[in-house]
Amino acid sequence: MTDTNRRLVLARRPTGMVDDTTVRMEEEPAPSPGPGQALVKVRYLSIDPTIRTWMDDRPGYLPPIGLGEVVRGPGVGEVVESDSARYTPGDLVFGMTGWQDYVIADEGPASMQVIPPGVAPELAMNVLGVNGMTAYFGLLDVGRLQAGETVVVSGAAGATGSLVGQIAKIKGASKVVGIAGTKEKCAWIVDELGFDAAVDYRDERVSARLRAECPEGIDVYFDNVGGPILDTCLAQLAMRGRVVLCGAISLYNAESLPPGPANYLNLLMKRGRMEGFIILDYVDRFPEAQAEMFGWVAEGKVRSAEHFVDGLEHCTEALNLLFTGGNTGKVIVRL
Amino acid sequence: MTDTNRRLVLARRPTGMVDDTTVRMEEEPAPSPGPGQALVKVRYLSIDPTIRTWMDDRPGYLPPIGLGEVVRGPGVGEVVESDSARYTPGDLVFGMTGWQDYVIADEGPASMQVIPPGVAPELAMNVLGVNGMTAYFGLLDVGRLQAGETVVVSGAAGATGSLVGQIAKIKGASKVVGIAGTKEKCAWIVDELGFDAAVDYRDERVSARLRAECPEGIDVYFDNVGGPILDTCLAQLAMRGRVVLCGAISLYNAESLPPGPANYLNLLMKRGRMEGFIILDYVDRFPEAQAEMFGWVAEGKVRSAEHFVDGLEHCTEALNLLFTGGNTGKVIVRL
Repeated sequence: MTDTNRRLVLARRPTGMVDDTTVRMEEEPAPSPGPGQALVKVRYLSIDPTIRTWMDDRPGYLPPIGLGEVVRGPGVGEVVESDSARYTPGDLVFGMTGWQDYVIADEGPASMQVIPPGVAPELAMNVLGVNGMTAYFGLLDVGRLQAGETVVVSGAAGATGSLVGQIAKIKGASKVVGIAGTKEKCAWIVDELGFDAAVDYRDERVSARLRAECPEGIDVYFDNVGGPILDTCLAQLAMRGRVVLCGAISLYNAESLPPGPANYLNLLMKRGRMEGFIILDYVDRFPEAQAEMFGWVAEGKVRSAEHFVDGLEHCTEALNLLFTGGNTGKVIVRL
Repeated sequence: MTDTNRRLVLARRPTGMVDDTTVRMEEEPAPSPGPGQALVKVRYLSIDPTIRTWMDDRPGYLPPIGLGEVVRGPGVGEVVESDSARYTPGDLVFGMTGWQDYVIADEGPASMQVIPPGVAPELAMNVLGVNGMTAYFGLLDVGRLQAGETVVVSGAAGATGSLVGQIAKIKGASKVVGIAGTKEKCAWIVDELGFDAAVDYRDERVSARLRAECPEGIDVYFDNVGGPILDTCLAQLAMRGRVVLCGAISLYNAESLPPGPANYLNLLMKRGRMEGFIILDYVDRFPEAQAEMFGWVAEGKVRSAEHFVDGLEHCTEALNLLFTGGNTGKVIVRL
């Protein structure tokens, strides 16, 4: 007996936010695993801003998703049938499942990774997954945070931003300021996560608040949003300050590229550095970071939050939460 | 008998280009050197874009020039009277003379440096001076040029840009492309200085030409100009490309800050880095660079050009040459 595989394929390239016409649900019989393969039933989908960038027909760090192809995206599934020594039925696996019910895992280096027993799927997708790795290597390797420095992070109540602030405190930052979009998010990152201060960018003048919170300037600005907040932080960079470009949520739905940050010139005056990175380049170093992050979770030093959305058919709504700011923490679609 | 010291003081902060009303010539008796001091008669003034930035009332890497103060700027003079063991009458010295006929040298660390016999004043001001040091450390230390890489430099017929291209070739760049503003400048940097190609930004589509000349992208872009050329080069960055921010000639006369480079986001896709530097931070390391540069000059591997303007009263016109592109090579006012 073969189950049905529901799959969301890219039906139309979006202009602006995605909507119902962006994807189309198709049904087909679930695939059968061949030798060295396993059939995985997808349980959770990791909803990340970068998925939106893959829907545009623009060069990026991965090719655009083709029209008619399943939407690319990471997820966690359960092995239900296996003809591979690497996978045992019942294993939870993490990898590029795509937005669908079933996927084939094989033994290639880019295929699924078995999640160790005892690690919850949401931990595997968030703190020990792409968000945690992005926060860790972005802050420590690209941003070269030193103890005693001042850190500002935008998208601070998001999956990555919330981890950046916590890692910064663990590593000895003297001041960590998060920028988020509601009073509730601001309260959460200060009261629950231990940020020193939070700025509600929808309700406060970001530049004045940052000047007050960071009177000696910003040593590391971890940018998840781009736009005017990036420009403001560039203007307030400390001597030899670093801007870590992780993402640009404010731009991903723009129909044409808005002007860049006028205050880039402050990089000259302050001998500053602005640098981008893609977490895929760090895959070889994930184990060291995962070990450290797992330790912090076990000690209660790092907390995370998940925002669950139920049902494959709600993937586009879940994706839009990232851009409307409707989420706190990691957005996960539960199948 | 005391000579007269003519001095150009900042009379009014300029909006846009400087003009006759920006400075005012004042006359006073030449100063007398006290113990440990020497009187220096200024012979040459180094005219640099950064002087324009000091005339604005904006925070920068040095304080703004005050109204009524002598315009700050480097120059070469001759010691005419000395009460210091460090200076002997007849010595040529290099330092912050300011725009005037006479200046006092003292024994402080930031005072004048005696130019070794045999080094021509124009060499001391250009290849062995701030321009050479800026080109050397900007390209090699900030830009981390590796042999086999592709380099693009703007302001390529200027004092610094012309040296950047030559150093890049010496250090094994596989391709060096200069961007300049006239056919004559383009011919000069290719035929005389050994650049591989030149783009006349006033007459050619820079993006199309760069794409043709650098099909695999730009590894190091040395930016002297800012504005649309910076944006174009960001869009064509190679994987792990570096943008060295040295200056922004296109912006220094702007009355308000124009938008920044929209393609900064390519730093993310390409894991690129954009970094500013100020050559004053490298003063301790000048001797190593000067020794290497002097060797290249002696071997005929590095050439320079000077564009002389005669007369202290023509300093503002000389400064404007840098922004209208009226110069080829180093602009020097001869007193």
